[in-house]
Amino acid sequence: MNDRLARVSLMRLAEPDDTVMGRLVAAYGPEAAVAQIRAGRLDPEFVRWFADVHRNGSGGARGREEPMERLDRLLASWSARLEGTDPGRDLAEGERTGARLITPGSPEWPTQLDDLEELRPRALWLWGEANLRLSCVRSVAVVGSRAATPYGAHIAAEFGAELGSRGYGVVSGGAYGIDGAAHRGALAGGTPTVAVLACGVDVTYPSAHHDLFAAVREQGVLVSECPMGVRPTRPRFLIRNRLIAALSRGTVIVEAAVRSGAINTAGHAVALNRHLAAVPGPVTSDTSAGCHRLIRQGAATCVTTPEEMIELVGTIGDDLAPELRGPVLPRDTLSAELRRVLEAVPARTGAGPATIAVTAGVDLETVLSCLGGLAAAGYVERVRRGWRLRPGGP
Amino acid sequence: MNDRLARVSLMRLAEPDDTVMGRLVAAYGPEAAVAQIRAGRLDPEFVRWFADVHRNGSGGARGREEPMERLDRLLASWSARLEGTDPGRDLAEGERTGARLITPGSPEWPTQLDDLEELRPRALWLWGEANLRLSCVRSVAVVGSRAATPYGAHIAAEFGAELGSRGYGVVSGGAYGIDGAAHRGALAGGTPTVAVLACGVDVTYPSAHHDLFAAVREQGVLVSECPMGVRPTRPRFLIRNRLIAALSRGTVIVEAAVRSGAINTAGHAVALNRHLAAVPGPVTSDTSAGCHRLIRQGAATCVTTPEEMIELVGTIGDDLAPELRGPVLPRDTLSAELRRVLEAVPARTGAGPATIAVTAGVDLETVLSCLGGLAAAGYVERVRRGWRLRPGGP
Repeated sequence: MNDRLARVSLMRLAEPDDTVMGRLVAAYGPEAAVAQIRAGRLDPEFVRWFADVHRNGSGGARGREEPMERLDRLLASWSARLEGTDPGRDLAEGERTGARLITPGSPEWPTQLDDLEELRPRALWLWGEANLRLSCVRSVAVVGSRAATPYGAHIAAEFGAELGSRGYGVVSGGAYGIDGAAHRGALAGGTPTVAVLACGVDVTYPSAHHDLFAAVREQGVLVSECPMGVRPTRPRFLIRNRLIAALSRGTVIVEAAVRSGAINTAGHAVALNRHLAAVPGPVTSDTSAGCHRLIRQGAATCVTTPEEMIELVGTIGDDLAPELRGPVLPRDTLSAELRRVLEAVPARTGAGPATIAVTAGVDLETVLSCLGGLAAAGYVERVRRGWRLRPGGP
Repeated sequence: MNDRLARVSLMRLAEPDDTVMGRLVAAYGPEAAVAQIRAGRLDPEFVRWFADVHRNGSGGARGREEPMERLDRLLASWSARLEGTDPGRDLAEGERTGARLITPGSPEWPTQLDDLEELRPRALWLWGEANLRLSCVRSVAVVGSRAATPYGAHIAAEFGAELGSRGYGVVSGGAYGIDGAAHRGALAGGTPTVAVLACGVDVTYPSAHHDLFAAVREQGVLVSECPMGVRPTRPRFLIRNRLIAALSRGTVIVEAAVRSGAINTAGHAVALNRHLAAVPGPVTSDTSAGCHRLIRQGAATCVTTPEEMIELVGTIGDDLAPELRGPVLPRDTLSAELRRVLEAVPARTGAGPATIAVTAGVDLETVLSCLGGLAAAGYVERVRRGWRLRPGGP
């Protein structure tokens, strides 16, 4: 059994968040790991390491269970699953579908996944035209609530399209709501988009996304660490989220309730030292409450436009968002003195320069010179009783 | 001429943001300041101070004008205005209206205005039943755009009512939009509300706020540093904003365009070391763009509820806002292991414990003990072919 087949086996043996398995594979490589499981006997050094970690209490307490009992149980469950696996059949089935398997070391493997350490996926199934590594090297994850509001869906689509048009790949989870809108935005902009699924790449979940996934395959790529045919489960969605965070330079949460999968993705982004941003929304909307909480906690940067997101994840100084400015009114270009005189000029009935001087709090000479300038610029006009504002302005 | 009459004169002599006048009054008191202006000759020491400040360039450059020329001009304009003032008439007119004048040292004077230093108002006209000092000692300024959206008006009213019901005074500017909604919210909650005007307290501006101002006078108080009858001008709105910021413990901007008076108030709050908060809104709304910019700059805290505002301005530890939590689903109370087994139980057709064990990645013994617990809690049920999810859940 070679590295590739061993990894295909491992995809079935343990859930992706099984860090003990992750450690075993990291220490011995996939082939030796499978061999140890098949033999029903883990390397004594590994067993010692496991016991040490748990004696020191840093491996996550698990109630009253003894470390060795736990390791035995894990090994038993890996073995039980190994019996039913046929990696050759899995590989053939994926290839028949049109998908391809990539493993660490494949040219298409995104090396940023190495940041996941023991949670690095054993392998990935890809289905679609785009090169995953190239699509993700400069990418942003746009994620959020399945129960998106029209506001959130609009923003997600805008972010997807605009990030794409500025050369950023758009990574999301292929779900209803924000995810789907982000993918659609990217597709509309002609950009590759990466949908990381919690099920096999051949499983259309949600089924209403049949056409969307077909479009993603045409222009982007579907990604999964699950074998073909695997259905999504609730824990798999959460485990999957770490891939979305790891693949991209930064994650922007468009809409999310206080408790939602997107908040879980946010946690992964922070843990992975990726940029995290959240889009604000109406405080009356529950689906923006999670975004606001992340902003309030200082965990996420408040981002209101795709440009601001690019500024966050882009190269410092190279990708600055344009500063938002209000319209420059002609009046604003006046000096403080001119403005003060202008404010003292009545709108309808004229006033003499002396009256204007007292109202404005400046001396007569200043008023006379200012009135000349203001008249030339069209702000004021001379009438029988003095000066007044010119109707219609300059 | 006593201190009180002198201050009434000074209200007409110089604009409230005339810091040279502020310095003169601070150094010599209002009576001596008026006397020097009347004599047309400022104290030589003051003149030296002015020259020093401007020689060192820290007094604000004013083009090519020499410092002494500028001081002469200022003195001339003060003198010109002094000629037309009649403080006794001003006082009588205010009292005839039903207003009262307070000065630094009056029992009703809010001492937090001292933080304004040279920009401290010379005196204030008050009109209304509430005691200004008591209304402001624990207060929040709720301000924002005149061109408020229904969203912003709703939030402002909610903040006004809720802050009031929790014992916080509500300070605002009496303008259309956010200000008016905040006042109305406070009034509805039966709380004193303070409207700081940019015109005389006897001038109803905007005129459509006739009834609102009457209600504020009944239950709160109108405040102005302008003499009776003075109409608002654009600069006066901006100058007035510092009083709103200074009177309250913190300012919350509910809606504001990037360029707006509320942003000016925000600047005063920051300069005065008061708390500054902004309410987020849809990123598609121009009237929330100023709020988002303040949040992005780190100048304002993102605040989504009145409770969060109180947490910001309140006593540390005493006024914590309740943490937002999602609903606790029964499923969430399960251990990770129970959840994993539950996820592996099929919905319709039953599955045997061995199949469930392989799917869940745990051993058979664990599955059997988990299934017992899950059945007892009503999550799963036994059917002919094994175990399945109980329709309708627990």
